[in-house]
Amino acid sequence: NMSLKWLSLLLLLQLTCYFSSGRCGKVLVWPMEYSHWINMKIILEELVTRGHEVTVLKSSAAILVDPNKSPTIKFESFPASVSQEDYENFFQQLLTEWIQGAKHSFWTKITTAQNIFSELSDVSLKICKDAVLNKKLMTKLQESRFDVILADPIIPCAELVAEILNIPLVYSLRISPGYSIEKFSGKLPFPPSYVPVVMSEFNDHMTFTERVNNMLYVVFLDFWFQTFNEKKWNQFYSEALGRPTTIFETMGKADMWLIRNYWDFEFPRPLLPNFEFIGGFHCKPVLWKYEGKKPDTLGPNTRLYKWIPQNDLLGHPQTKAFITHGGANGVYEAIYHGIPMVGLPLFGDQPDNIAHMTAKGAAVRLDLDTMSRTDLVNALKQVINNPFYKENVMRLSTIQHDQPVKPLDRAVFWIEFVMRHKGAKHLRPAAHDLTWYQYHSLDVIGFLLACVATAAFALTRGCLFCCRKLANARKKAKRQ
Amino acid sequence: NMSLKWLSLLLLLQLTCYFSSGRCGKVLVWPMEYSHWINMKIILEELVTRGHEVTVLKSSAAILVDPNKSPTIKFESFPASVSQEDYENFFQQLLTEWIQGAKHSFWTKITTAQNIFSELSDVSLKICKDAVLNKKLMTKLQESRFDVILADPIIPCAELVAEILNIPLVYSLRISPGYSIEKFSGKLPFPPSYVPVVMSEFNDHMTFTERVNNMLYVVFLDFWFQTFNEKKWNQFYSEALGRPTTIFETMGKADMWLIRNYWDFEFPRPLLPNFEFIGGFHCKPVLWKYEGKKPDTLGPNTRLYKWIPQNDLLGHPQTKAFITHGGANGVYEAIYHGIPMVGLPLFGDQPDNIAHMTAKGAAVRLDLDTMSRTDLVNALKQVINNPFYKENVMRLSTIQHDQPVKPLDRAVFWIEFVMRHKGAKHLRPAAHDLTWYQYHSLDVIGFLLACVATAAFALTRGCLFCCRKLANARKKAKRQ
Repeated sequence: NMSLKWLSLLLLLQLTCYFSSGRCGKVLVWPMEYSHWINMKIILEELVTRGHEVTVLKSSAAILVDPNKSPTIKFESFPASVSQEDYENFFQQLLTEWIQGAKHSFWTKITTAQNIFSELSDVSLKICKDAVLNKKLMTKLQESRFDVILADPIIPCAELVAEILNIPLVYSLRISPGYSIEKFSGKLPFPPSYVPVVMSEFNDHMTFTERVNNMLYVVFLDFWFQTFNEKKWNQFYSEALGRPTTIFETMGKADMWLIRNYWDFEFPRPLLPNFEFIGGFHCKPVLWKYEGKKPDTLGPNTRLYKWIPQNDLLGHPQTKAFITHGGANGVYEAIYHGIPMVGLPLFGDQPDNIAHMTAKGAAVRLDLDTMSRTDLVNALKQVINNPFYKENVMRLSTIQHDQPVKPLDRAVFWIEFVMRHKGAKHLRPAAHDLTWYQYHSLDVIGFLLACVATAAFALTRGCLFCCRKLANARKKAKRQ
Repeated sequence: NMSLKWLSLLLLLQLTCYFSSGRCGKVLVWPMEYSHWINMKIILEELVTRGHEVTVLKSSAAILVDPNKSPTIKFESFPASVSQEDYENFFQQLLTEWIQGAKHSFWTKITTAQNIFSELSDVSLKICKDAVLNKKLMTKLQESRFDVILADPIIPCAELVAEILNIPLVYSLRISPGYSIEKFSGKLPFPPSYVPVVMSEFNDHMTFTERVNNMLYVVFLDFWFQTFNEKKWNQFYSEALGRPTTIFETMGKADMWLIRNYWDFEFPRPLLPNFEFIGGFHCKPVLWKYEGKKPDTLGPNTRLYKWIPQNDLLGHPQTKAFITHGGANGVYEAIYHGIPMVGLPLFGDQPDNIAHMTAKGAAVRLDLDTMSRTDLVNALKQVINNPFYKENVMRLSTIQHDQPVKPLDRAVFWIEFVMRHKGAKHLRPAAHDLTWYQYHSLDVIGFLLACVATAAFALTRGCLFCCRKLANARKKAKRQ
């Protein structure tokens, strides 16, 4: 009965779209897991509301990607060679490993992250093969004639499916390890002098020592880390497409990059016309009210609920501070509602996120392992009582709200744009058609240096020759 | 009577604004001349329509900046040490010189442009001094408490006035010679491998030879051309502000850069968060109809009018092609209305503009000096009869129209944003706080190379020392 209700609602939406603009499209989705999925679902639901048909490619190992929880979205399931239990255990193990590794120096953090992404890459490649080598599935997808694929490139595969089905591709990306995907596939420049590397926890105003470290990190990440597990992917992609290619090249075909960040959270840095910053699109204004029975086992100031959507809690007018692990979704909700933070980061981009918020004066950072009860109380007192934090987070909140178009509307606009125009070629920089040495003008610089060297050599030889001639002439003159 | 009518309309608009949003502001404008002024007036009139008070700083030498033609805009006049006649003659002479120079090789073009900008710079500096050293004027401006200055930085001065009055600054810029202002004041990166230099007439897909030339042009422009007349300006700005500064540093204070370009016209290249591309904002849909008496001295297909707004003409449904000198305003009107072009560029950015349009398949280029009557007829036939041109220009037109917010609305949004927030600090890259060698990480690279060299030296010396020790020991052993 419920599903019948949803089905008729869906039909109604699509009919409305068909008769109003005639621009309804079919969106195929390659999802990520956990918070990435929760985040992406908001875009998908908005697409459905606007009358588009959204189909999520769901492996049998999927954890949070659950058809029962998203009745308006279609799901196309395929059997994976990994069991759901193994997949979930794998993520749990990764998490533990990562949280442990994140407590140490940059180099330990990086090595841990490298291991994590290498393991994740192996499992992801398995699942990717399960999908792409599944002929029945691929034929069905081909016949469905989708208009666009939407994907989070942290777990690759969508770009290969897009190439096989020959349809445009839109990415939704928070950040990739070492900015490798944005840099090598998106051709986005990251000047190391004022763009701190992921996991460095630096801000955009770096001391000389920090800039030296940042440069070392960049060189390290560019030449070693980025190649983490590329080979296996390059091989599979080349096989699947029947021509030599790489994962970075295939990812570079993306028409539009929706970056889940904005300039209240991020430090200003270069972007490209096909990068749209949509950070905080998942936040919603809240009119929240709870009138349950007050539990009497707790102190009068502490309430315990089974679960309340975090966004709702942060939108409550009485919320004064937010103790957070620094996940990007949560930080954006705090910015949106103007709530100062106490950050207890665990792993991934969380320490960086908190570093951004402390640099902007909107948070105090604590260390979960070493902090005392008093530290936490003091940090809370500080962000609640010192107007500095509230003022700063309110400034960020104003920036988040004061945009010509809301981030969710911009995200949907560009997905629809790509569907309408079968891509967004006019936004694609020509950098994609250059090799890495051409991109950095190394061939040109080499040629010009060679010219200068040749000219200098010829000039020197010429001078020497003339000098010798002159000397000989003088000798002859002396002899005569 | 007319002025009374306008005054009451103005008062009404401002009252409306005051009572609706309370966000009306006072905008001071430092104008450029000719097409730049015609273009900027459209933003100013839109600002007035939204209830803002717009005051244009007008020197007595101003040519097209005419209070009589803009009754809704306020003007603050000041006497200039240049007569209007001399100023106009100066521009006429410049134009002739520039058109002559533009016919030759890149290096002649560049040298001519350098002379032009040097002469323009001298006259502009005079007028700037006339304004800034006019105490009565500056006191009046100070007392007027403006919220923002809007300026076209091709004729500098606004940035100095903004510093003296201590108010935010918004630029409206089409392009600067050699991208120098965008690069050195705005910190915008221009990778020479795929961003062709101004006046090169290259497109974004360059051959090896073109890339070599482009690199040479960049080096030449960066190290020589950009310093054209800087010294005099640096000196005056330092004196006026009472601290050592440069014109590029002062220009770098701009909060927002409204670039009169967009990705239908321009090749995709890196941008920064405080650069907004508003190209074509001046174009308007047209419902044009002319029912005058048909002149009978001309052929039946040719009509002669005293003057028709170009935008209206291009919007006429019977318009099939546009013969243009390639001015940016006109090219944008052709894109907006989807009219293929025959380009006869004269000077400045015009050859580049036509090079962009030919690269995108929307125009055919002719040379005004060498073309025959047949050439023109053939070119017209080509763009009218070959669907290639119409299809391409229609594609550009679609891109121009398919934006989440119209360019004029975005321009006004960001001017209002800067007024509301007294700047746009959150969009300002930290690159502004670095020296040029820090920005390019030259100090860091130097330090790291020195470290490597020292380590290599120490290692070599250590090895040599050990070898010698070992050799001595062996000798001793042999002797014993």
